[in-house]
Amino acid sequence: MHATSAGVDGYLPLDWLPRGVAFTNNRGAHGVKAEQFMRMAFTMLHTRMPEIIANQHARRWVQLFSPNLVGRTALIVGLGDLGEASARAAKQLGLHVVGVRRTARKSRHADAVHPYAKLDKLLPNADFVVLAVPLTTETRGLLNRQRLASMKPTAAVINISRAPVADYAALAEQLRRGALAGAILDVVDPEPLPADSPLWDAPNLVITPHISCDDGERYADISLDLWFENLARFFQKKPLLRRVSLQHGY
Amino acid sequence: MHATSAGVDGYLPLDWLPRGVAFTNNRGAHGVKAEQFMRMAFTMLHTRMPEIIANQHARRWVQLFSPNLVGRTALIVGLGDLGEASARAAKQLGLHVVGVRRTARKSRHADAVHPYAKLDKLLPNADFVVLAVPLTTETRGLLNRQRLASMKPTAAVINISRAPVADYAALAEQLRRGALAGAILDVVDPEPLPADSPLWDAPNLVITPHISCDDGERYADISLDLWFENLARFFQKKPLLRRVSLQHGY
Repeated sequence: MHATSAGVDGYLPLDWLPRGVAFTNNRGAHGVKAEQFMRMAFTMLHTRMPEIIANQHARRWVQLFSPNLVGRTALIVGLGDLGEASARAAKQLGLHVVGVRRTARKSRHADAVHPYAKLDKLLPNADFVVLAVPLTTETRGLLNRQRLASMKPTAAVINISRAPVADYAALAEQLRRGALAGAILDVVDPEPLPADSPLWDAPNLVITPHISCDDGERYADISLDLWFENLARFFQKKPLLRRVSLQHGY
Repeated sequence: MHATSAGVDGYLPLDWLPRGVAFTNNRGAHGVKAEQFMRMAFTMLHTRMPEIIANQHARRWVQLFSPNLVGRTALIVGLGDLGEASARAAKQLGLHVVGVRRTARKSRHADAVHPYAKLDKLLPNADFVVLAVPLTTETRGLLNRQRLASMKPTAAVINISRAPVADYAALAEQLRRGALAGAILDVVDPEPLPADSPLWDAPNLVITPHISCDDGERYADISLDLWFENLARFFQKKPLLRRVSLQHGY
């Protein structure tokens, strides 16, 4: 069984999976687009585009300048396919990159990697907090009200994973109070976001419609390449790649 | 005499400059920020952010996907400080970079450099057209109605130089007709843009308030560094850097 998405939270818990059936996902299909999106997200938030966009709508010319982006700190939560893509984008922009992941494994692109237990100590120093974790019972509500409140008022949040990883009501409240500088959310709950959701016009919030990581021309080709690679491995009796862990749920 | 801007179009013609007085400008102060802005501009336009922003305002969830950015063509008009910064940003994003400049001098970052005479042949192949020329009698109205009409309907315009280099009325018309995909204009005429300007709500147009190239924290320091460097050269009787050419007007 193969999921054409990377996130398999919609299938959890995996107690329905028949014994002996391998379940693989599409991780690896999203890195290129995710990296491009993250370059955009970091630079848009740093350039104060949420405010500038609002000013354009209000026909207001206000010269909002921004300093050099180099040297700011990106805290990347989750270092899978999307997290590594975010780390690559951040390094290319000259950011200091701190990663948080479940295992102690290092990252090719992050300057430092910490376990989740360190998250509360790291949040107050971040200029950007990037959510790139799978949605599991462990990560649901991870960026909660209290953690959001511990961030700098000049900091910004980017979510390219799953909406329930963060408390969006608390995030919108912080944005309204100016306790956070901005956010770019590529995922919401539910999708499509209903027209009457208060998120649409939260200040300094940019909503992108779950498009951050999917190649609009080649997604099917990329997915089939990953699937056929595994089919070849199956015939060669090699271990399959991108298997979803029943224990971790991703 | 030193201008704290790079563009000196406001002082043209330079017939008022007393003989024997050197006139220098601030070119070199803008490259770092310009490069960061251009990474944002290329990725925003490619990711269809102008449409996505409009949809957010209308509370509409429409999944507008985009393909891989790598391999698209950026045509950069002018290869001074800002043009080279644009070329660097474009190369880092994996774009094919074509430059146009007055002289035959090569560029460190552009894959090819052509004289202005070739502009009409190059425009129909560009995915992005970047205006990074000084405003002079030669460049005024350079991207005129006819040239805009020769661009692909999927292409986009970015102007970080001076507004009169392009015909904005024609540009807005093209955007309204869907004959161009988008534009990011960091310069308008006049600035501040009046509230009743029809540019504010031209479709797929993002207006940034002349903030693309100025470091909001260190602009004065950067400018003074450039000025003191020339002061030292003056005392050492060395030729001054960044002199404005009376002949070319920049």
